[in-house]
Amino acid sequence: MSEKPHGDAAPSRRAVLGWGGAGLALGAAAVGGTVAVAGAGEDGPSSSDGVVPFHGRHQAGIATPVQDRLHFAAFDVRTKDRAELVRMLKEWTRAAERMTAGRAVGEGAYGGIPEAPPDDTGEALGLPASRLTLTIGFGPSLFDDRFGLAGRRPDALEDLPKFPGDNLDPARSGGDLCVQACADDPQVAVHAIRNLTRIGFGTVAIRWSQLGFGKTSSTTPEAQTPRNLFGFKDGTRNISGTDTASLDQHVWAGGGNAGWMAGGSYLVARRIRMNVETWDRTSLQEQEDVFGRDKRRGAAVGRSGEHDEPFLKAMKPDSHVRLAHPDSNGGAAMLRRGYSFTDGTDGLGRLDAGLFFLAYQSDPRTGFVPVQRALARSDALNEYIQHVGSALFAVPPGVRDEDDWWGRALFT
Amino acid sequence: MSEKPHGDAAPSRRAVLGWGGAGLALGAAAVGGTVAVAGAGEDGPSSSDGVVPFHGRHQAGIATPVQDRLHFAAFDVRTKDRAELVRMLKEWTRAAERMTAGRAVGEGAYGGIPEAPPDDTGEALGLPASRLTLTIGFGPSLFDDRFGLAGRRPDALEDLPKFPGDNLDPARSGGDLCVQACADDPQVAVHAIRNLTRIGFGTVAIRWSQLGFGKTSSTTPEAQTPRNLFGFKDGTRNISGTDTASLDQHVWAGGGNAGWMAGGSYLVARRIRMNVETWDRTSLQEQEDVFGRDKRRGAAVGRSGEHDEPFLKAMKPDSHVRLAHPDSNGGAAMLRRGYSFTDGTDGLGRLDAGLFFLAYQSDPRTGFVPVQRALARSDALNEYIQHVGSALFAVPPGVRDEDDWWGRALFT
Ligand code: HEM
Ligand code: HEM
Repeated sequence: MSEKPHGDAAPSRRAVLGWGGAGLALGAAAVGGTVAVAGAGEDGPSSSDGVVPFHGRHQAGIATPVQDRLHFAAFDVRTKDRAELVRMLKEWTRAAERMTAGRAVGEGAYGGIPEAPPDDTGEALGLPASRLTLTIGFGPSLFDDRFGLAGRRPDALEDLPKFPGDNLDPARSGGDLCVQACADDPQVAVHAIRNLTRIGFGTVAIRWSQLGFGKTSSTTPEAQTPRNLFGFKDGTRNISGTDTASLDQHVWAGGGNAGWMAGGSYLVARRIRMNVETWDRTSLQEQEDVFGRDKRRGAAVGRSGEHDEPFLKAMKPDSHVRLAHPDSNGGAAMLRRGYSFTDGTDGLGRLDAGLFFLAYQSDPRTGFVPVQRALARSDALNEYIQHVGSALFAVPPGVRDEDDWWGRALFT
Repeated sequence: MSEKPHGDAAPSRRAVLGWGGAGLALGAAAVGGTVAVAGAGEDGPSSSDGVVPFHGRHQAGIATPVQDRLHFAAFDVRTKDRAELVRMLKEWTRAAERMTAGRAVGEGAYGGIPEAPPDDTGEALGLPASRLTLTIGFGPSLFDDRFGLAGRRPDALEDLPKFPGDNLDPARSGGDLCVQACADDPQVAVHAIRNLTRIGFGTVAIRWSQLGFGKTSSTTPEAQTPRNLFGFKDGTRNISGTDTASLDQHVWAGGGNAGWMAGGSYLVARRIRMNVETWDRTSLQEQEDVFGRDKRRGAAVGRSGEHDEPFLKAMKPDSHVRLAHPDSNGGAAMLRRGYSFTDGTDGLGRLDAGLFFLAYQSDPRTGFVPVQRALARSDALNEYIQHVGSALFAVPPGVRDEDDWWGRALFT
């Protein structure tokens, strides 16, 4: 997790920017990522803190231990020129390599050319990598007739059905592309999305974005389970990021009809508004019945420890956990990686807050869809929540090395 | 800073909730705050981590070292009943004492009475106090004819003038009351505002609220200066929270015509949208000219170290630092304590981001107002920013002890 992808001496984000004349040379040398630079900057930690390797068979940000904060952006592609889109994806990949390593975007010229805008927007200078991961996804709409990709659309990327109770805002749904930025410092996550957006200027534009302030799942069983905005432990039963067998079975996509997706995953994103004011007025008993778990410990009905196996028949038939459990859905499972959000207050003085639900799976048709069908029909939780945004993305496999780029297997 | 307000054995937030039958006794005993409770909970750190004392001559959250995150809420009072408002302020004070100590709201019955809603919403259970501070303020509108306070309105609480360039949204401005919640963990800050809102249900309602994800000032000179969303170090020259003489001169209010404000302060809050897309396209030279400081080190024009005294005449006449400096404003100074925000994306795909500017001063008429007049007229920064929300609050002195309450001197 704190392994350095580019050797020990890669210049930090801070070291690269604004080095005056020296910045040019340093920047150029940094392309290969192997220059030796005196790590001693003026202030701030060095970039070796909390670096999650960017390269690998799978993209980081899925099985990776969940970071504290999220900035998620969905983009529309504005160009009709496939080559331009490919150029941008290559540029994005190089920038993502640098930023996830705690380095500034771009390859020099920071402060070296006062007449030019700096390559990096600068607000993350001096901050450590903060376990930043950047994860790209391709939405169903990318596979229309604009880029000649129609024939490459995976069957698994079938549009989600409309579920009962959905109240989806098109302005918070869909997108040709997405980038999930997770980091322990929100400034680092926001910086990453902003710089990718800037690189993509003219080629893509943000369609919607979402900030998440508190993780609601852990994918590391040892960690303390976080609590969601209803005050319950969330993520108790989840696929662990270290459970290779479960990941292979439920999270990583095989090729199917789309070989380019082997080693990738499918991401379902749902903005779910939680009516906290109503919830806060319901009794503890009702709250515990709704989930089928107790509020203090997170133990399933009739069990005493959080991690004791739930006994589903002891729960009310409409309890969330009973309905969502794999045993009630023919084994369906997914890796949940959502975040709590609050976006201020709505027109009625109520907190506009909820869960930005993110789930990764090998195939949504056998993962999210059947589970959400069951929940939408009967979940006792439905009285307190509403799905207001929805998106689906094919998340390609990882970038192997510095010659590879996001989406290469799809576009070549 | 990690001193415990209630002795060593105050039950933690986690320990209080859901203790079943024991919770009742424990809660009741905890009123005095001196019960000895075995601190060993199931998981999570104890409440002694990062507790900022709530009681004192001044409210915490002003001179206090700046925490990482903010949730700020402005409230309208919905009742016309002064006694009801006073009752709520007392309840708020007791809840604030508990939450800032890392404890749950309420005095027991968590989980003890399944038929009742829990007193605490629960999402911060198991989290440390995270240096939470809660700071209350009273807006000009509170001093109308509803509560018989018209005669007690401080002269210093004069409505802010309209400044050139202001584009204020009434829905993001004003408020009868405000609470500033600062903590190192956003979940703790959000939890605090939510629980105060819940206690105030029927008496007050949130008018607007603002989440801040990155501090833009430090009030501790030793700390690394954070960067704002334009990538510049922000807070280099600020009133230090340990500089008693400066605080007495510029931040703490005397009584003036309103004796109840002695030891308090006045807070100006401005939501300032920053046009990051335009900024990111300007040259480094222009960026540095706008501020009068260099981007890498934060040094003033012609100086080499961040903390070298600025030489104002070396800066362009319309540079932000030159115009804002006390020497250009007859000595006017304030303690800035703002946060960066991003609230997603606007309808044009641009980041809705900026600075939630917070400044404390002994009198806005000699603090914020003259400085902002100068800035609104000539600041080169105006090309890249716009003030879109505004509010002003009289921030009363601190709560002395467990018999005192927020606003006592005003209401009695
Ligand atoms: C605001 C909405 C939601 C809230 C507050 C919520 C909360 C919870 C909580 C507290 C648990 C129990 C602890 C745990 O095992 O993680 C849980 C379990 C679970 N939830 Fe949700 N959830 C929400 C929406 C969803 C949705 C939309 C899905 C998928 C369609 C889902 C799927 C699951 C699954 C698969 C489990 C684990 C069940 C088990 O194996 O025992 N949840 N959820
Ligand atoms: C988005 C809007 C703003 C941005 C990005 C911004 C940024 C900055 C920066 C980078 C500095 C230099 C570093 C420092 O000494 O802290 C600074 C200084 C300062 N700013 Fe601002 N500022 C903004 C708005 C304001 C406003 C509205 C006021 C008050 C009316 C203000 C008052 C000051 C003061 C008093 C200083 C210190 C000047 C000195 O003593 O050298 N700023 N600001």
